[in-house]
Amino acid sequence: MSDIRSLIESRVSTGRYDSARPLSDDQVAELVQLATRAPSAYNMQNWKFIAVRSADAKQRLQAVSYGQSQVVDAPVTFIICGTLAAYEGMSKVLQPSVEAGFMDRSIAAGWVEAVTGSHRDNPQLQRDEAFRSASLAAMTLMLAAQGMGLASGAMSGFDAAALAQEFGLADNEVPVMLVTAGYPKPGNWPQKPRRPLEDVMEVA
Amino acid sequence: MSDIRSLIESRVSTGRYDSARPLSDDQVAELVQLATRAPSAYNMQNWKFIAVRSADAKQRLQAVSYGQSQVVDAPVTFIICGTLAAYEGMSKVLQPSVEAGFMDRSIAAGWVEAVTGSHRDNPQLQRDEAFRSASLAAMTLMLAAQGMGLASGAMSGFDAAALAQEFGLADNEVPVMLVTAGYPKPGNWPQKPRRPLEDVMEVA
Repeated sequence: MSDIRSLIESRVSTGRYDSARPLSDDQVAELVQLATRAPSAYNMQNWKFIAVRSADAKQRLQAVSYGQSQVVDAPVTFIICGTLAAYEGMSKVLQPSVEAGFMDRSIAAGWVEAVTGSHRDNPQLQRDEAFRSASLAAMTLMLAAQGMGLASGAMSGFDAAALAQEFGLADNEVPVMLVTAGYPKPGNWPQKPRRPLEDVMEVA
Repeated sequence: MSDIRSLIESRVSTGRYDSARPLSDDQVAELVQLATRAPSAYNMQNWKFIAVRSADAKQRLQAVSYGQSQVVDAPVTFIICGTLAAYEGMSKVLQPSVEAGFMDRSIAAGWVEAVTGSHRDNPQLQRDEAFRSASLAAMTLMLAAQGMGLASGAMSGFDAAALAQEFGLADNEVPVMLVTAGYPKPGNWPQKPRRPLEDVMEVA
């Protein structure tokens, strides 16, 4: 097994960052680029990433995140959004797979029909799908960060309505998670103990 | 950067498995063990993993997954559930962190109070949290599988109510995602093209 195991085991939900160590534009873009390699239902890619880096934007994010200081101290916090009604963009999203020659046009059309039928009149399913896709991307981003020698921290403590207004999200964009990233400073907790495997696993 | 990048870039949503190559009990347990290292809000660990391995259980899963054949062909499919009302178990979940000495008893009590206050009367937040946690765990499991030389495939196409009944889920357990894992056979699609970075990323 590759060292993915050590990345998974050494990742720590980080709240204390070395604010004196910035990230480059390339590092930030690379994190998002890798996050978009996560899977999504029907390859919908129903997500959006806002990299909060400026002092002004950090202050505005802190104000809608119950004052949590890590969004100011970390060099970047990603607002990871899921998009609702993503079925509307499916044809466009699948086009490159058709053009690359491995997905028949008829299969792509079938997918568009299937997802439109199941999602169009089902707002809860759209929301579930937004949470699934954005969370898969968030986890990929955090493990990519770990592999780049960075620390990260997932946060779900924010006022979603206030955040949407402050950062101009569209009606179909739901903020699912914040992920801070940067170089840690001393004082972070270790990875917290997990429940015993027998408490969370069954075999059928 | 470690080879996490190559794991992320080489992962393929796999539908065709070599049904002649089983997984060992240890491999299955290791996948779940690593998945539980994913973060969750307040370290709630609000998840459950059902490893579907027997011929009988695979047939029952296929019947509630719109007949998709990969849940029969793959040596294992994980039903990854999120749990609602997870705040009720928070004290117990945090106890090992208190006993390990890095989390003050008063901080743990504060977390329990905070999550109880925000979650108790908010079923949508409980569901969102279940989807977040289970999806973070699912992505960790898929990248762990990739590191073990296995293929995997995330599936959200299943009848949640029928699945819950068939596998005896409790009222507070929501099936969030199926993840197949095993050795692939030829004929899987490559990883599908992604939208350009500028379409999904903003900097603030």
